[in-house]
Amino acid sequence: VQRESRIDAEGLDLAPQFRTATVELMATHESIRRFRPDPVPDGALDALLVAARSAPTSSNLQAYSIVVVTERDRRARLATLVGNQRYVAEAPVFLVFCADIARLRHVSARQGREFAATTLEMFLLASLDAGFALQNAALAAESLGMGTCCIGSIRNDPDAVAAELDLPRGVYAVVGLCVGYEAADCRRGVKPRLPAGATVHHERYDASGLEEHLRAYDATMIARGSYTGRQVQTGDGEQSDVYGWAEHTARRTSRPETLLGPSASLREGLRESVERQGFDIR
Amino acid sequence: VQRESRIDAEGLDLAPQFRTATVELMATHESIRRFRPDPVPDGALDALLVAARSAPTSSNLQAYSIVVVTERDRRARLATLVGNQRYVAEAPVFLVFCADIARLRHVSARQGREFAATTLEMFLLASLDAGFALQNAALAAESLGMGTCCIGSIRNDPDAVAAELDLPRGVYAVVGLCVGYEAADCRRGVKPRLPAGATVHHERYDASGLEEHLRAYDATMIARGSYTGRQVQTGDGEQSDVYGWAEHTARRTSRPETLLGPSASLREGLRESVERQGFDIR
Repeated sequence: VQRESRIDAEGLDLAPQFRTATVELMATHESIRRFRPDPVPDGALDALLVAARSAPTSSNLQAYSIVVVTERDRRARLATLVGNQRYVAEAPVFLVFCADIARLRHVSARQGREFAATTLEMFLLASLDAGFALQNAALAAESLGMGTCCIGSIRNDPDAVAAELDLPRGVYAVVGLCVGYEAADCRRGVKPRLPAGATVHHERYDASGLEEHLRAYDATMIARGSYTGRQVQTGDGEQSDVYGWAEHTARRTSRPETLLGPSASLREGLRESVERQGFDIR
Repeated sequence: VQRESRIDAEGLDLAPQFRTATVELMATHESIRRFRPDPVPDGALDALLVAARSAPTSSNLQAYSIVVVTERDRRARLATLVGNQRYVAEAPVFLVFCADIARLRHVSARQGREFAATTLEMFLLASLDAGFALQNAALAAESLGMGTCCIGSIRNDPDAVAAELDLPRGVYAVVGLCVGYEAADCRRGVKPRLPAGATVHHERYDASGLEEHLRAYDATMIARGSYTGRQVQTGDGEQSDVYGWAEHTARRTSRPETLLGPSASLREGLRESVERQGFDIR
């Protein structure tokens, strides 16, 4: 099956020498949410782990850890914790990318020095280290013919996830990654992104064209049927006739009443959880 | 010039079918800090921007922006703001990856809904979106024969960076990326990482082998001379005879007196800055 490339979907005029295998891999990325049961070969797992460990890390602090979950029961329990996403149980490998300052705290104590990086900066740095490692792992997996799906809802219930994975103080789960061979017919083409003019700025930030980009993007997403049957429910049961990215996004970042409870998508308890888990957000 | 691969450096036994072009690209990654003046071709810039825009984004919120800086004077001013790193002025392109909730706030107002995502979660989500976009851009650039270097010190002085780039409330610079063609002889082989056993866990977090891994890694880094002439200065002028990753890291995460001032590496002002910039860290 020929995969759709965002380069073609957007009609970008890009000469062949700029369409490297890696660029094409990224431009054809889709999140995969249905997997075959076939296991991930050991060599493939080794490849994506060395890729993850090769990602940039701020000041070489390597303030992250990866938990490789393959046990079926554990995957099933995690699938429940992230909001009943069945593909977390279905994918043969679930990787949990964690911010990790427990190792750094241990090293400080070992060297007889005070650990003073008890700041928002360190929370961010460690979370980004985990994110860079995840993105390398995901691309490595996709280059090996597998599909992936990021699971941000690993942050829905940080305490339960920490208990499930024995995460010590100083470690919290930032994002999960499903890895496996995709089921047949589970691609529907790359998801359109906001026009480049909305997210890319030259020399200085410039939002002057934003309204035009939002109208164009809404039209694209409505024509594609991206939200058909997927309207975020508001308390008043409102259904919009014109429902594109703008309305979907505005509802998501409001405080909608959903089946998952009011705070599920906002994750208002994250700060308290990560502080309990040993991060200081000063 | 044959680039060193971490796969070989670690003596990993990985069958050829698992060493895809993308895996090799990641496994040979080194930060590049010396650039030729040759400009980045337009097509290459287009390729890395479409790659960045294709990165995963939580709930398709696309809560990031990229500022492409090519003007010489602006690069020079930014080089000063990030702690006098001359390669930021030297690289022909400097990309600034920003967390962006200004666009989401605009969309909420446009749709007549309350923006309620004023949380640590949204700060994190937007920062990760920026980070995923950066990692795609960096790998795309490297696949096109260019070198890159992440600039976390873009967070040293967020207010000045926001002023330089006209960042509105709701946008802050997470990480910068130097992009360009590397100067001759600026590679020294991949930087060794902590042994996989220290950062990768199976089924559950397990730090039982950490001491052994730290000793092995210190020996590796000392043998390589990674810190020769680069000891972090402490207030008492202490120079250690045995100075590996552990001591370097312990000093970095303490509150060392450095030429950049006591808080440069800890960035203790980040929270106040991003709150001034319109992020709530609840």
